[in-house]
Amino acid sequence: MVLIEGVTLMNDYTPRPEDKFSFGIWTVGWQGVDVFGPATRAPMPAERAVRKLAELGAYGVNFHDNDVFAFEATPAEREERVGAFRKALDETGLVVTTATTNLFSHPIFKDGAFTSNDRDVRRFALRKVMDNIDLAASLGAQIYVAWGGREGAESGAAKDVKAALDRYKEAFDVLGSYVLDQGYDLRFAIEPKPNEPRGDILLPTIGHALAFIAELEHPELVGLNPEVGHEEMAGLNYAHGLAQALWHGKLFHIDLNGQHGPRYDQDLRFGAGNTRGAFWVVDLIDSSDYDGPVHFDFKPPRTEDDKGVWASAAANMRNWLILREKVRAFRADPDVIEALAQARVPELAQPTLAPGEDWRSVRDFTPDIDALAARGAAFEHLDQLALEHLYGTR
Amino acid sequence: MVLIEGVTLMNDYTPRPEDKFSFGIWTVGWQGVDVFGPATRAPMPAERAVRKLAELGAYGVNFHDNDVFAFEATPAEREERVGAFRKALDETGLVVTTATTNLFSHPIFKDGAFTSNDRDVRRFALRKVMDNIDLAASLGAQIYVAWGGREGAESGAAKDVKAALDRYKEAFDVLGSYVLDQGYDLRFAIEPKPNEPRGDILLPTIGHALAFIAELEHPELVGLNPEVGHEEMAGLNYAHGLAQALWHGKLFHIDLNGQHGPRYDQDLRFGAGNTRGAFWVVDLIDSSDYDGPVHFDFKPPRTEDDKGVWASAAANMRNWLILREKVRAFRADPDVIEALAQARVPELAQPTLAPGEDWRSVRDFTPDIDALAARGAAFEHLDQLALEHLYGTR
Amino acid sequence: MVLIEGVTLMNDYTPRPEDKFSFGIWTVGWQGVDVFGPATRAPMPAERAVRKLAELGAYGVNFHDNDVFAFEATPAEREERVGAFRKALDETGLVVTTATTNLFSHPIFKDGAFTSNDRDVRRFALRKVMDNIDLAASLGAQIYVAWGGREGAESGAAKDVKAALDRYKEAFDVLGSYVLDQGYDLRFAIEPKPNEPRGDILLPTIGHALAFIAELEHPELVGLNPEVGHEEMAGLNYAHGLAQALWHGKLFHIDLNGQHGPRYDQDLRFGAGNTRGAFWVVDLIDSSDYDGPVHFDFKPPRTEDDKGVWASAAANMRNWLILREKVRAFRADPDVIEALAQARVPELAQPTLAPGEDWRSVRDFTPDIDALAARGAAFEHLDQLALEHLYGTR
Amino acid sequence: MVLIEGVTLMNDYTPRPEDKFSFGIWTVGWQGVDVFGPATRAPMPAERAVRKLAELGAYGVNFHDNDVFAFEATPAEREERVGAFRKALDETGLVVTTATTNLFSHPIFKDGAFTSNDRDVRRFALRKVMDNIDLAASLGAQIYVAWGGREGAESGAAKDVKAALDRYKEAFDVLGSYVLDQGYDLRFAIEPKPNEPRGDILLPTIGHALAFIAELEHPELVGLNPEVGHEEMAGLNYAHGLAQALWHGKLFHIDLNGQHGPRYDQDLRFGAGNTRGAFWVVDLIDSSDYDGPVHFDFKPPRTEDDKGVWASAAANMRNWLILREKVRAFRADPDVIEALAQARVPELAQPTLAPGEDWRSVRDFTPDIDALAARGAAFEHLDQLALEHLYGTR
Repeated sequence: MVLIEGVTLMNDYTPRPEDKFSFGIWTVGWQGVDVFGPATRAPMPAERAVRKLAELGAYGVNFHDNDVFAFEATPAEREERVGAFRKALDETGLVVTTATTNLFSHPIFKDGAFTSNDRDVRRFALRKVMDNIDLAASLGAQIYVAWGGREGAESGAAKDVKAALDRYKEAFDVLGSYVLDQGYDLRFAIEPKPNEPRGDILLPTIGHALAFIAELEHPELVGLNPEVGHEEMAGLNYAHGLAQALWHGKLFHIDLNGQHGPRYDQDLRFGAGNTRGAFWVVDLIDSSDYDGPVHFDFKPPRTEDDKGVWASAAANMRNWLILREKVRAFRADPDVIEALAQARVPELAQPTLAPGEDWRSVRDFTPDIDALAARGAAFEHLDQLALEHLYGTR
Repeated sequence: MVLIEGVTLMNDYTPRPEDKFSFGIWTVGWQGVDVFGPATRAPMPAERAVRKLAELGAYGVNFHDNDVFAFEATPAEREERVGAFRKALDETGLVVTTATTNLFSHPIFKDGAFTSNDRDVRRFALRKVMDNIDLAASLGAQIYVAWGGREGAESGAAKDVKAALDRYKEAFDVLGSYVLDQGYDLRFAIEPKPNEPRGDILLPTIGHALAFIAELEHPELVGLNPEVGHEEMAGLNYAHGLAQALWHGKLFHIDLNGQHGPRYDQDLRFGAGNTRGAFWVVDLIDSSDYDGPVHFDFKPPRTEDDKGVWASAAANMRNWLILREKVRAFRADPDVIEALAQARVPELAQPTLAPGEDWRSVRDFTPDIDALAARGAAFEHLDQLALEHLYGTR
Repeated sequence: MVLIEGVTLMNDYTPRPEDKFSFGIWTVGWQGVDVFGPATRAPMPAERAVRKLAELGAYGVNFHDNDVFAFEATPAEREERVGAFRKALDETGLVVTTATTNLFSHPIFKDGAFTSNDRDVRRFALRKVMDNIDLAASLGAQIYVAWGGREGAESGAAKDVKAALDRYKEAFDVLGSYVLDQGYDLRFAIEPKPNEPRGDILLPTIGHALAFIAELEHPELVGLNPEVGHEEMAGLNYAHGLAQALWHGKLFHIDLNGQHGPRYDQDLRFGAGNTRGAFWVVDLIDSSDYDGPVHFDFKPPRTEDDKGVWASAAANMRNWLILREKVRAFRADPDVIEALAQARVPELAQPTLAPGEDWRSVRDFTPDIDALAARGAAFEHLDQLALEHLYGTR
Repeated sequence: MVLIEGVTLMNDYTPRPEDKFSFGIWTVGWQGVDVFGPATRAPMPAERAVRKLAELGAYGVNFHDNDVFAFEATPAEREERVGAFRKALDETGLVVTTATTNLFSHPIFKDGAFTSNDRDVRRFALRKVMDNIDLAASLGAQIYVAWGGREGAESGAAKDVKAALDRYKEAFDVLGSYVLDQGYDLRFAIEPKPNEPRGDILLPTIGHALAFIAELEHPELVGLNPEVGHEEMAGLNYAHGLAQALWHGKLFHIDLNGQHGPRYDQDLRFGAGNTRGAFWVVDLIDSSDYDGPVHFDFKPPRTEDDKGVWASAAANMRNWLILREKVRAFRADPDVIEALAQARVPELAQPTLAPGEDWRSVRDFTPDIDALAARGAAFEHLDQLALEHLYGTR
């Protein structure tokens, strides 16, 4: 590591509250059930997840209603489970940054929730969300994530997509009015995903969700919760997607993990998967005005026991901190600054038209074509500098 | 084919003007140059493409400026080439439905056009578009396609995506004011693509482009031109994407071809590639209010000679007509109507809340959970009916 | 459908025993458990699957040991369950064409079976296979499928791949000697898969498994069981893979289903997914010397109830029969025969060197380069004929 | 970097002859022609590539015949061009490690070479290879690469795959006898690729090519030249593929570059793309008995000028050296050795059966199932150690 003036190098990678690291209760609690096999780990009560995450240095948690209590819980059971959860939160000081509803596990949601063909399911889904919004608000959550995992189809005639988008909009409009009427300080964050568990899922990417939001009654209440793996399952550049979400002012939350391109949803720990992609994600977020939770939505592989779960969980935060140190060194490196200038990266921030110009100013613009054609973009040198910061050899 | 009352079965698949079939001049004119080899076919002047397409029954064409005249053409050469093109149009009656600018071939566009890091390239790109808008307007084109093929990056630091989106917006704002100031009856259609020829392209999917449009000064002037292969390269469902574009009122144009999922951009003729996907595309468009050109953007494979080029071109239209016959039979089939009802597809068109209801109406909604859980969605039977219509065995 | 002399068109698509249709017990028995939700359907005893499949017209079944009895079954329970299974087979006449071992569900197999890092797991896996081989042999199975679903890794250091291949070979060598020593008329069929449920699976494609087999002690005992979806998850052409397996004399079994390219393992019914791919699969198999079961390894989507399960199951066979009729008509169509000749397809069967020639005969071979370069391959016309047979418009 | 006893840390990353770095002449010579645009860089004579690569520290080169002289070159032109190439080699001391034939650019190869449907093309292809084998042998090449880039098809009927494999085998049998008869010390290395520029390419992966080789008359003469990007285009793990090739004794050559999963063939410089994958590739090769060239087959992006070409080229070698240092530190790290033991990685090298055991020894093997089920595999901790070596934070 070249020491660069003005950059404070961290001596360790210990998570601190100001890092705002958070985890889904369901992440460390995943028992390893998949299509091909049952659980390899014991169930984990939400309060245990809270306590262990606190020990590891996390700042907050996100939860589905049914991470805390079972779908079938009686009111008494629900109360008991919520109480244990709340107690653990209180004792550890962990913040509920975010909450969400499980609208994808129970068989009634097999064709979706907000866009199920079955109207009763849609009506019940709204009620289930309202129930958990109340709990979320009481726990202080400010972001309410909406992942529509079963909103989709395996076959063409089964879903009228335009009608489904009408219903999807209706759901957010109803829930928006609920939150406003209740006076909750809560905004929604849609989490796009292209497929799995449905053949094709509605609002499959960051872009589709951004466009959708613009049609809502209260677009200001709804933003995005993009997940690394979900975008990379479509072969899309996650950092580019985040940048567009930021550009629209809609990056409300992030879900960090790892993935190896188009295949099943791997939910590897952050840092595993596309390592260079992770570098650019941290670079983007660290230099942006995003100040929400740095949230991890991963699954400790089914091979791991409880010890492995926590090793995996801790590594998410550690990798963020390591990468944050690297991206700061990268941006402060004089060679990088010079290489960016050579690659004309800052020139892109300069408007194409000068103040006062309009189309007339360029109507007959004729540059020196041969000179522009011959000019190299100098991107390879710049990218190699970045890679060497990732390697830690600069 | 089961004969169904009220459906007029076509006796043949001859293209008619009202089918509005159109082709890019560059499609049949593709010489077969790829990364691994030079041309296998002779250059084709635009006027030859026009005459042959007219013979095959096409209604219209789309063209890039440099499909008609070379980038380096002198004014006299340009005039001569445009004249020959115009003459062929006049003589054949083919309509210029659409036009577009080549902002991706010349070396000056190697880092993009509207979002090139080089400001002079951006300024020149605007001018090049305005030049061809004038020609397009004079030829009667009403849609102006914008495919930003080189707007992107291979590496993370090379492109400041937020700045790039600022410049991308600036370009459409400038061009929008140009079109308005000139009084042209012309709207823009953005054609998204996830990658190739750049590592990652900006506005990679239908969704990203839809979201972007909402931020423009004149969003009403800009819509989408989604291409089958481009969405399928990201593993996305093209018909779903079209449906969302229609839902936003933004389907201005369509680019039809064939692709086999995430891999290089194949540009197979329409019908080749994802056959079942094509069925649902025709079903959606045929039942929608889209009335623009049915446009083919394919490449006759490099293996074909001139005869093969026209065989391939004609098959695009034929496949559309065959599929259109099938989707109409599908929608008219009483068994299908019954299966749709069983699958509760029409129920999705029913609002989740009845007139006058609000969130209070469902705040405590408790359906018969067990009954809903047990209820099958009956999608497989429905999908099999569709497949048998595709097979022609119903 | 153009009636072609010499082709007997079927009047219906009723499965017959000579079609050799078979199903995995686990296919119709899949309860819908996935990573994101529990069962949506009740457990199905193997005997019920047998009886219903017989009603639908199936010829045979394939089974994992734990499709019939639970991993934890006592000997008495196992006996009872096997008895019920056997009784159903006897009463229906269904054949056990194939059997296999569940080496992927139980937590002990979380890091694989034959290639688990844990030697005790490897030893137990051998024993579990031998147990079920005995049962398979007693039920008359002639093919024993080996899908190594958990043989793989999520991360680089976790698996020494060369050592793993040594152990994989050791397992097949041991099991080969077991089968030979027992005098069983049983051959193994390896089922490759690139990933899911492991990040990367060993022997990921048809090719890797074919190469592996050549290194075994008894290569004659081991062949392939390629599955549509598994190859298409890697973007590979399944029919091409089958053709190579046939070329090596190693196509022992086929697993038919549907998939939409690189994404999670969809296991759609055969015909859904890549429709054109399915056409070429049936074409290849129908014209080959493959005479094993036409086996379906699909999953009725989680949305379906019991009725939907059987609709989905039946459609697999129906789609095969429809496509078989089509490929026969395609091959008998005089226009196709002419188009194949124009495309020089039969010329590829002609050796490059004539009898008696060697390299000296072509050492200075100089064809008319310009003529060869100009010659079109005429593939588009041929492919369009195939597509129209698929559509049923010829 | 933790200093570990016994590991010599390099002070710099200067390529040395013993590193055996080699480049294709066509890599740095790529002018940037792609499907969407013409050259952005001037042609580079082979001798210039040689001299510049020598300056950068390369050890050797690989070349296609038509990298040195044009397809249409007269004998005199060929002589002149080969002379200039040879002179540059002599003066720089660069070794011709490898050679290959361009059987994919000229229009006559549009349907392939060894498997073209056209017999004259097949015969000419053999002659073209023999011509260049003579040159290769005279230049001292010991490996002759065969990439069958156009051996494939876009559509199903166009290629009889079994016949094509017969012809493919015939070609290698003929060429094998040629090499043996000439007494050349030359072995062939097949380079698999799944698609692009053909829709599907024959021998699409490492596995398919390995299996194919086993059927040749002289399998000992033929091995593999796997390329990073080609395997990753199919979503396959390149290091796993290399390991299997090594296991078969068939890793004759390697083609290193970078790729972002299933999409067009990117040919990024080595290190760009899948960074973690590259770490495991170097780890595998560095600890194996592979002693062939460390060959780079990349394309400097079309954005770069001549200066960028060399920056990109040099970075390939630099990244190998950086990663080699890291993998050696990883393997020497006591914490890693401990973690490998905990993950039971060395236990996989232990045969499943002890010496003298056979299937009888495990016929009734009954381990402690509950203990095995509960045992964690401890892979996450191990993988995190590897990642931190990649980051350079250990």
